[in-house]
Parts: sequence; C-alpha cells; structure tokens
Amino acid sequence: MEPDTSSDARGQVFRCWSAQGGSRPLTVAGAQGSWFWDHDGNRYLDLASQLVNVNLGHRHPRLLAAVTEQAASLCTVGPHFSNDTRDRLARLIAERAPGDLDRVFFTNGGTEANEHAVRMAKLSTGRSKVLTAYRSYHGATSGSITLTGDPRRWPNEPGLPGVVHFFGPYAYRTAFHARDEQQECERALGHLEEVFRMEGPHTVAAVLLETVVGTNGVLVPPDGYLQGVRDLCDRYGALLICDEVMVGFGRIGEWFAVDAWHVTPDLITFAKGVNSGYVPLGGVIVSERVAAAFEDRVYPGGLTYSGHPLACAPGIATIEVFEETGLLAHVRRLGREVMAPALEKMAARHPSVGEVRGRGLFWAIELVRDRETREPLVPFNAAGAEARPMAEVMDACVAGGVWPMCQMNRVHLAPPLVITEEELRRGLEAVDAALDTADAYATR
Amino acid sequence: MEPDTSSDARGQVFRCWSAQGGSRPLTVAGAQGSWFWDHDGNRYLDLASQLVNVNLGHRHPRLLAAVTEQAASLCTVGPHFSNDTRDRLARLIAERAPGDLDRVFFTNGGTEANEHAVRMAKLSTGRSKVLTAYRSYHGATSGSITLTGDPRRWPNEPGLPGVVHFFGPYAYRTAFHARDEQQECERALGHLEEVFRMEGPHTVAAVLLETVVGTNGVLVPPDGYLQGVRDLCDRYGALLICDEVMVGFGRIGEWFAVDAWHVTPDLITFAKGVNSGYVPLGGVIVSERVAAAFEDRVYPGGLTYSGHPLACAPGIATIEVFEETGLLAHVRRLGREVMAPALEKMAARHPSVGEVRGRGLFWAIELVRDRETREPLVPFNAAGAEARPMAEVMDACVAGGVWPMCQMNRVHLAPPLVITEEELRRGLEAVDAALDTADAYATR
Ligand SMILES: Cc1ncc(COP(=O)(O)O)c(C=O)c1O
Ligand SMILES: Cc1ncc(COP(=O)(O)O)c(C=O)c1O
Repeated sequence: MEPDTSSDARGQVFRCWSAQGGSRPLTVAGAQGSWFWDHDGNRYLDLASQLVNVNLGHRHPRLLAAVTEQAASLCTVGPHFSNDTRDRLARLIAERAPGDLDRVFFTNGGTEANEHAVRMAKLSTGRSKVLTAYRSYHGATSGSITLTGDPRRWPNEPGLPGVVHFFGPYAYRTAFHARDEQQECERALGHLEEVFRMEGPHTVAAVLLETVVGTNGVLVPPDGYLQGVRDLCDRYGALLICDEVMVGFGRIGEWFAVDAWHVTPDLITFAKGVNSGYVPLGGVIVSERVAAAFEDRVYPGGLTYSGHPLACAPGIATIEVFEETGLLAHVRRLGREVMAPALEKMAARHPSVGEVRGRGLFWAIELVRDRETREPLVPFNAAGAEARPMAEVMDACVAGGVWPMCQMNRVHLAPPLVITEEELRRGLEAVDAALDTADAYATR
Repeated sequence: MEPDTSSDARGQVFRCWSAQGGSRPLTVAGAQGSWFWDHDGNRYLDLASQLVNVNLGHRHPRLLAAVTEQAASLCTVGPHFSNDTRDRLARLIAERAPGDLDRVFFTNGGTEANEHAVRMAKLSTGRSKVLTAYRSYHGATSGSITLTGDPRRWPNEPGLPGVVHFFGPYAYRTAFHARDEQQECERALGHLEEVFRMEGPHTVAAVLLETVVGTNGVLVPPDGYLQGVRDLCDRYGALLICDEVMVGFGRIGEWFAVDAWHVTPDLITFAKGVNSGYVPLGGVIVSERVAAAFEDRVYPGGLTYSGHPLACAPGIATIEVFEETGLLAHVRRLGREVMAPALEKMAARHPSVGEVRGRGLFWAIELVRDRETREPLVPFNAAGAEARPMAEVMDACVAGGVWPMCQMNRVHLAPPLVITEEELRRGLEAVDAALDTADAYATR
C-alpha cells in the first residue's frame, strides 16, 4: 500500500466475526470505571465489561500502576527463563484455586488456554476424545472452535477429530422433556452418561464445560449437576476441565465459579477477568495429579509470551484489589439485592421476557414472542432481517446510554464488578425501558 | 492450595516445552538494551533477543513511553469497537507491506496468526489442504502444531486433517542430491510442484512457509525459490502465506523478509518484532483480494483481544523508531560487515563448524562432528545424554556472558537489532571462544 494520509472510511483493520463490508463500529475514544465514550462525547454504561473481561472497570488506578511499574522494570522475558512477577501470580492463583489445582500454565488468552488444557488431558490420560456441550464457546483456534458447541464452529468444520458434543442442562428449553430444574439435572446427567457409554468410556480423555455457560445463554447449572459430572468423570477415568474464561475471577461472586458448588475439576482455564484484559493473559490451572504426568515427560506445548511479566503484574494487582475491597461480597450483594429483583420486575412487566437467570453480576434476559410457546424473539442463529427485533432492542439500549451484550434472543448483563449500586440501578432502568421495543413483537 | 509463604524451590509455574521435574531456569531480574541479568548480578548479552522478539532491545524508552501513555488513556477495548491506536497501527503496517497487503487482522501472538491465515485461505479458496515445510515451526495450537514440520508436532499427532509436508531448499543437507544452491532451488521447486500434482492441485488452499526458516535452522531461501513458489501458487490457484513471525519487522534488514526477494504473498503472518513483545501481539496482513472474499460473508473467527490498544501502541512506536533511526540500514550493515566476516572466521578456525548462514541479524552456526560427512554434532532431535555436546556449547556461551539460542546442532544468533557494533563484536568473541567446546568432538 502507498502511504496516504487521507482518511479512509473503512480503515485497514480486518474485523473479527464480521463481513468486512459492513459499517465501521463505534470508535471508543476513552473509558473510566464502568463507562466508555466516543469522540462525540456520547457516554455509555459498559454493561458487558467489553467482552466480559474488564472486571475491575476501565483505568483502575491499581492496575494501571502495576502495568506502569512493571513496564519500567521489565516488560517481557521469555518463558524459558523464570521471573518473579510470573512466579508470584502463579502462586496467588494456586492459593485461591480449589483442591490440588496448584500449577499454572500461562497463555495469551482463552482459546490457547483451552487448547493446552485439552492437550494435557489427552496426553495424561492417553485417551483421544473430549466431550463438550452444544451450547458453549471455547475459542477460535482449530482445537477450540471444534470444542465450541455453537454455530460459530459451523464454517470451520470439519475440525479436529475426537470432539463429541452433548446437551447440558437448560431447563427453560429442556432437551430432556424435564418438568423442573431437578429433573433437568438428573436427565442431563443420565444423557451425559449415555454419551460416555456410546463413545466408549475408555476413549474419553475429558469432559470440558463452561462452569456457567456464557455467550450461549448464562446457563447456571442446577445444583448437583457439576458434582454429577465430576462423579461421571471419576467413574470413567476422564478428567473434568472447567472453562472459566468468562466466569472465573469474581464474575459470579466467587474466585472460581466451581466454588459455588464445591466441585474441584482437574483443570480450570481462565483469561479475561484475571487481569481485566489490561494486557492479554490467560492460562490453565493444573492439578498436581495432571502435572505429575509431565514430571519426567516433556509437555509438548508453549508460546513465546507464556507468563508475560507485563500481563502478570496487573493480575497480581487484581487479586489484591479483590481482597482489599471485599469485591466478591459486593458482587454477591449486587446480584442478590439489585440485579435479581430488578430483572424479576422486568419479567413481570414485559410480555417479551421469557426468563431471567444469572448469578452475581452475570445475567441474561431471554426474549420471546410468546411466553406460552417460548418461541424466541428471533430464531436460533438469526442474521440480517430475521435478527431485526434484537437489533432494535440493542439500538434502544444504546440510545438509552447503556451497552449490554446481545446474543441471539438474549440481552446479557455483565457490568464491571466495581459498578456502584447507583450506576447499576440506572443501567437497569435503561434496559427496562429498551425492552418496550421487544414487547411490540410479543403476544400479550 | 493452602496459602503458604515459604519459598518453594520449584514454584507454581507449569513450564512450556519442559518436563516439569527439571531444574528451575535462570531467573531474569532485569534487562536493558541488549542485556539482561539475574538476581546475583550476572549479566548476559541477549544474543537471542529472548525468543527472537525483543528487536528493539529491553526497556526501549520510546516503547515504554508508548505503553505508559496508552495505559493512562485506554488499556483495552473490545474488537467489536473501533479504536484509533489500532487503526493507526493497521495503517502503518499496511503502508509498509508489499503489494495489495492492505488489511490487518490482529491476534495475540504467532500461533493464532497462522491459525487465522490458514482459515482465511481455506474459506476464500474453498479448498481444504495446506502444504507446509518439514523444517518449520508455526505455533502450538492444534492447527499450527499440525502445520509445524518439526518434531514438536509428533506428540500432538494426529492433528488437524489436510496438512501435507514438503521439503524446502537446504543446500547444506540437500534432500534432492543437489550439487549447489541453484540446483537445490530448481529441484526444491520441482519437488513442490510434484507434491501439488500428487495432492491434486485443486485441493490445495495454500502453501505456508517461513520466508526465512527460523528455529529449524535459519534457512535463507536461495534466490528464485520464493518467486518460484509464488508462481506455482498462481499456476494452481493456491494462496501463498508467508510466516514472518520471526523474521518480519527488521530481523533480516527489511520490513518484511519477502522484500529481499521482491515477492508478494497473499497473506503475511507476524508477531514478535511488531512491538518487540512488550505486550503480546501478532496478526495477519491480508491482501485486498483475500479480504474481498469476506466483504459480504462473515469471517468466522476472532478473539477477545484482537487489536488490543496497549499492544498496538508500542507497535506504532516501533515503526517510528525504525524510521527515525535508520534501523534497517543498521541491521544490514552489521550483518554484512560484522556478523558475516566474524562467522566466516569462526568457520575457518573451528573444525566443528559445518556451515554458517544468515542475513541481517539472523544467523546460525551449524556444528558437525565431521566436515566431510557433515554428521551433526548431536543427532536430529537429540535429548538427554545424546544432546550433551550442545549443552556444553551453551554452557560455555553462558559462562562467557552471552545467551544465544541453541537448537539441535546449531547455535542461532539473533541479537536485538539495536545492538551496537561494539557489543556485537564482544558477543561474537565469546561465541567464538565457546566453540572450542564443540571442537573437542570434531574430527580435525
Ligand atoms: C467461555 C469462553 N472460553 C473461551 C473464550 C475464548 O477466549 P479468547 O477470546 O481470549 O481466545 C471465550 C471468549 O469469549 C469464552 O467466553
Ligand atoms: C516462525 C514462527 N511462527 C510462529 C511462531 C509461534 O508464535 P507464538 O509463540 O507467538 O505463538 C513462532 C514462535 O517462535 C515462530 O518462530
């Protein structure tokens, strides 16, 4: 390309998950706390924490100080050396992870974390298959996009061999004709066991699942489900890998979402909230049992920026801020006292609301055309004109100064964990008002 | 894990490409320019630029200022928004990339860059196979490790279907019984065409190769080879993807290594040198022709940190520093006037040196037991006791205060591009002295 200083409406950025001919997205000029703004001074309350990663909000002074100080002393060092900042974050994470999850393999983000976790599971068990849920997202590299259970994997198929998808619990749209949550849980476990049997239990290296399913609907597992999966894995000698890229580090008011159900997986993958995405970072928390398989045998994987000091420094600050400010309790309280009641009120007021669900500061409003039939406001994986009603809901939110994450027929709410009660109430009011748009499509 | 403040000899970090029971690597306490040091004050000249990424050296004031300023204004923003820092870096890269390589898809590192480039090639051609070289490294996620042609892929097989490996030119250990570089070039091209024919040319989406092969030996392609591959791709309707993760951004004294041979690929992948690894960053430079395939069709891939502002800011500074300081010319001059003659002298003095080769500030010394038979100093993919002679060479380098990168039977030299002539001469003297260790194993 020839140097050119004229402005180009489209720019040179090739965009993720997009047709490149589409209109250029909003330019974010700056951000602070739970807010971001464009060049025209329009301010938005960030009800999605960008992509559910800015858990401590934008420009948190402690995280910025950590980045600046680390940059001044040592930005980067290869993974073939040791480094104190990396060692310290690994220790802090290991101390907060359940059970014997005591070792940390660092990556740049979530997809690499899942790629490596699955590799560890396959090599340490000597088995080749991985079971993952249909409604799930695990990342976009070849392995992770195959592990993904949602439509994002379709254009990327056929993918890596050995991935088998199963149905997880989702009482509102049960795949098991269950009448309530408890029956959904039992039947989902029965289904998973049947998949184990049909696949040959001795071929299954691991079950990988999002502890709370994220972009596919904020599906909170019914009590007993995770423990049931843990038991199945133990029975058949498979490992349990929990993808906590979206829900780890406080999103539901726990260090790790598995803590809410007192279950210890063999591997936890994380990214996003670990350092609020100030510097790309992800990783795998590895149990001593899995690590032992690589005690004398080389682990065949790595990356140039594994344990990048500049990424680890705000991770350390993140953990300190959580503890010094009692943030997990704040998240639980806002979830219980502000989110839940406000969403219940919306559900009562708006005929378009089919279900609200969530935990901590991680919620979804599922929109329907008809509460009886539960027909979604837009069809599964709708695009273009079919998706219009949801686009209108999003537009109404934006016009109201809030920026949630809309996925299929759902509005997801995942604000920064540092959001104040007042900001949250104000944001929820704007969402409430925006739902009038959806009501226009709903049977009363 | 229970909180514990006692020191743990091993630590909690699960290490890349290692048996975890091995000894803990050297702890890097700090670094400056071309040097780094440990807690005991031992200083090392960084002849590997960590993993060939710290092109502008450690703690470059301009890069640090860029990181600090960007952090203060906006650390992170989702890829579904636009951002000026990201736009600006994409423009600067596009302006320096050859031909119509005008769009940039940003990733966190090299492996993701190759994953996405291959995806773009497959989807835009509608074909399923990718040809890559045996002696190559392309990254560690499922797709990239399959694309990799070296032993690192073995424990990860079987991998993604549709990858076929071919032999590239390597005159010193010719796979084609060639007598010289020119014949090696012709025969390598003939071989590649034969692989096209046997695989079915209409099934081949792309040829992916490292413009200059990096960790597999600093194999500089003979003149005519890249153009020949470009012609084959054009003849058969396949795309040419050049992996410049290691050699892009100045390593051989050109913005992009393809510039040295005036060849324009369809896709270039980069990482490392783009911002010296101060913040994890990689990407794919996409030709308008490939981008056009995704004008109206959604590109099915993405990542949370695509075009991360904090990573892009030092990328902008990198390009400015290159131009303001005439760095490309400096690299070419040091390569020609310092590296090449010094290595020729070592080759003459040490019976263990089989060949020296390279360009710019990217060189390898290939060590042999016998110059006639060219038997390598250690066998292909040696480990443990078999690899001892190379471990001794590395130890001798370290004892002499320099830290090169040893790969199989080779010492790779890839210092920061900002290294001074004096530092480089001093470093080369230390390497020269260390080679005495190898001579002990060589036939005189
Ligand atoms: C549950 C889950 N896993 C994995 C990923 C992939 O992470 P990344 O985009 O950092 O590769 C995501 C990203 O949204 C996610 O939500
Ligand atoms: C040529 C080449 N491609 C790809 C990669 C992978 O890059 P990363 O480690 O950032 O994933 C490397 C890393 O050394 C490389 O040298």
